[in-house]
Amino acid sequence: MSFIDVIDYIGTFAFAISGIRLAAGKHFDWFGAFVVGLVTAVGGGTIRDLLLGNTPFWMQQSSYLLVTFFALFFVILFGRQLIKLNHTIFLFDAIGLGLFTVVGIEKSIDAGFPIWVCIIMGTLTGAAGGVLRDTLINEVPLIFRKDIYAIACILGGLIFFACRYFEFGHELSEIITATSVIVIRIVAVVCHISLPTLKSEDDK
Amino acid sequence: MSFIDVIDYIGTFAFAISGIRLAAGKHFDWFGAFVVGLVTAVGGGTIRDLLLGNTPFWMQQSSYLLVTFFALFFVILFGRQLIKLNHTIFLFDAIGLGLFTVVGIEKSIDAGFPIWVCIIMGTLTGAAGGVLRDTLINEVPLIFRKDIYAIACILGGLIFFACRYFEFGHELSEIITATSVIVIRIVAVVCHISLPTLKSEDDK
Amino acid sequence: MSFIDVIDYIGTFAFAISGIRLAAGKHFDWFGAFVVGLVTAVGGGTIRDLLLGNTPFWMQQSSYLLVTFFALFFVILFGRQLIKLNHTIFLFDAIGLGLFTVVGIEKSIDAGFPIWVCIIMGTLTGAAGGVLRDTLINEVPLIFRKDIYAIACILGGLIFFACRYFEFGHELSEIITATSVIVIRIVAVVCHISLPTLKSEDDK
Repeated sequence: MSFIDVIDYIGTFAFAISGIRLAAGKHFDWFGAFVVGLVTAVGGGTIRDLLLGNTPFWMQQSSYLLVTFFALFFVILFGRQLIKLNHTIFLFDAIGLGLFTVVGIEKSIDAGFPIWVCIIMGTLTGAAGGVLRDTLINEVPLIFRKDIYAIACILGGLIFFACRYFEFGHELSEIITATSVIVIRIVAVVCHISLPTLKSEDDK
Repeated sequence: MSFIDVIDYIGTFAFAISGIRLAAGKHFDWFGAFVVGLVTAVGGGTIRDLLLGNTPFWMQQSSYLLVTFFALFFVILFGRQLIKLNHTIFLFDAIGLGLFTVVGIEKSIDAGFPIWVCIIMGTLTGAAGGVLRDTLINEVPLIFRKDIYAIACILGGLIFFACRYFEFGHELSEIITATSVIVIRIVAVVCHISLPTLKSEDDK
Repeated sequence: MSFIDVIDYIGTFAFAISGIRLAAGKHFDWFGAFVVGLVTAVGGGTIRDLLLGNTPFWMQQSSYLLVTFFALFFVILFGRQLIKLNHTIFLFDAIGLGLFTVVGIEKSIDAGFPIWVCIIMGTLTGAAGGVLRDTLINEVPLIFRKDIYAIACILGGLIFFACRYFEFGHELSEIITATSVIVIRIVAVVCHISLPTLKSEDDK
């Protein structure tokens, strides 16, 4: 198991936890919570793979399913005490966001798409799972209203191609990109940075 | 028209009816009700086919569309009297669930996927249409909160591969699987068996 | 840039505007509004391309993204004054509906599908983006409850194949079809024509 695998599992675990906790808040049963957790963890990458014309990644390796199972048991066992772990889970989530963005960009480069498509795919890989999650639990998607989340993926994508432009090595570009996404995400949350909201036409 | 076709139409009809009735409860127009009925009936199989990389089954044969039309006219004509048929419709729905599960498993075996992917695809074929239906009518998916529904498909999938392991004939395995799903679904509803619910962190 | 391109951009712009305005009504931030605008504009065609097994059209040409950006800045700049443009935007939207329907039908013919699949794909291209939009902003899809919208696409599809049956030229068939969809849509709104609503079983 490589270092990347470990990070991949940590990110998957954090994403699944976020889905399962929101499902718990809606009184889903174990099966419903598992599905919401799985969709949160693999949904973004699945949309990416369908758009790219690939077989979804989680159908080729059972580890994503197993990590989601583990996340479900974790929530069942530790339940309310998870609140104490909020900072750790947030950190894991940010790490996952960084890694998933890089994975999404690279799969799109492999498929021969132009830069702007790769950046969109990186962003979908990182952020679309959360949108599917919120749709399933019948809420307005959180990332459309609050915080810098998908924007961190987009900026990460721009940084990735800037690194390539300046001919940084491949691995270095990856590390800089993932780190940038993680740092942008954390700074945005710590400093309460968010995008301007659109004014409704009904507002007075 | 083979016996399987008849069961396929019965299942499609029952699934479409469930979508159309829920659409009626939201005061959808005829077109909206038709779409919700169609999505309920063919949505699960469509997600399966997209994940497997196949052309969606309903695009290759117009019968699913025709059965959904028939279901729409049936609801328009008989409307409130359908309540008297609730038991029959429930039975048809369970039969559809059993058949769709088997179809989903077999299409995945044909596509060369491992057992656990086949079981997921069988479950998606049976249960994902209802999730899409609930998303379209803007409700929290019913199967995430109540009853044994998708779990019946999963258990059916396990039974299917157990039958294969013990080298039962192909048709016999299919019949045992579909029957198991139907029986599990009916027993769960009759005996009010359901999965445990996750506790919300806000609960006192 | 051909005449068709201009119409395509006008339609994309109008669809994106409709998504962005509804997102503004839900107090989405700029990113969220952009995503909803993009999904409204390209969502229908994306579903069509996935069902047909094609690479989504907007991944092959960046203009759709650029038009959506332009629509976002337009809404940010002119905001509430857009209400005065409601008639123009409605007209642009109807023009887009007509064009998108024709594009969807032709792509399906190219992919070798039968007439009824082509009509469904034309309808999905025109109308499914609005359904995805309403799902993302967590509302019941508007086109399932009000007005003649998707029905205009279906009638347009029937007219297209009638034109072909009578051996009208290809371009003439396209123009007649797009015009029919636009006229049907406008007449339906002006004359308040809508489909019957299904009665709920709970109604007294």
